[in-house]
Amino acid sequence: MIEEKYQPIADMAVAMVEGIRRTGLQVVDLRERYAKVLMPMESNGNHVGIMYAGSLFTLGEFAGGIIFGVTFDITKYVPLVKEINIKFQSPAATDVTLEVSMTKEQAAEILKEAETNGKADFALELEIKDAKGEIVSLVNGIWQFREIPESMKGIFATQ
Amino acid sequence: MIEEKYQPIADMAVAMVEGIRRTGLQVVDLRERYAKVLMPMESNGNHVGIMYAGSLFTLGEFAGGIIFGVTFDITKYVPLVKEINIKFQSPAATDVTLEVSMTKEQAAEILKEAETNGKADFALELEIKDAKGEIVSLVNGIWQFREIPESMKGIFATQ
Repeated sequence: MIEEKYQPIADMAVAMVEGIRRTGLQVVDLRERYAKVLMPMESNGNHVGIMYAGSLFTLGEFAGGIIFGVTFDITKYVPLVKEINIKFQSPAATDVTLEVSMTKEQAAEILKEAETNGKADFALELEIKDAKGEIVSLVNGIWQFREIPESMKGIFATQ
Repeated sequence: MIEEKYQPIADMAVAMVEGIRRTGLQVVDLRERYAKVLMPMESNGNHVGIMYAGSLFTLGEFAGGIIFGVTFDITKYVPLVKEINIKFQSPAATDVTLEVSMTKEQAAEILKEAETNGKADFALELEIKDAKGEIVSLVNGIWQFREIPESMKGIFATQ
């Protein structure tokens, strides 16, 4: 379930980037500091009938942006992806999902560092699972939390 | 320039995977053990006007498949991507390209290992460059070279 106040963030996160939108990625659950996202098998298969590596990557990369959007003030801060490592452990032949969360303590620590240095890196270790709950891919990413430049402030406003 | 005998491989590599085809990725140059591929900025931008991370990933991941196709016998062997690390060094605001090549010696070594063990890993270190020739992303990937299962043999035939 998407908590009502976060519906604009869910919509915006998918709609704003054509490369995400065209995969059919769906935000399934969204609440403060938690998100569950789904990549459908439909239109994301490869030549041998399993999910295309790039669609699995999209799901993993999306996690950093969406958890940011329900943890921090997106009118003030912006996340940038710095590095992602993705291990393709076993083939995915169904829709796949990914859950991402952040504790209050983690969020406070990132915010504190950003307030001191103007930016802060944050790492996420994520699992992509198939419909049976088996891990198909492991994603390790590093994002950077930055104060939003004045020129970009309008883009992230939800109103 | 795409060498004529490799045109079917260039076409097939893009056409067979919807998630690649819809990005508009183009094979620019293709000859034995060498490929240059391009990701257009058009339809691959993100919410802040730079190239979407997932489209950069797609270009990097594609490298493993296309170099495989102009190095080995694709009616006998198939590449599987095992792991990819991508570092987003600087923002890409233009079309980007990637060159990938393999020496005869590297190819022979992989083939020898695969003939002994039925499979062999191969690693590629790749640079994605913008229109000015500046590196925007670094891609380190590991693919596995495998004998193609009987059930899949038809898929990769170019005729």
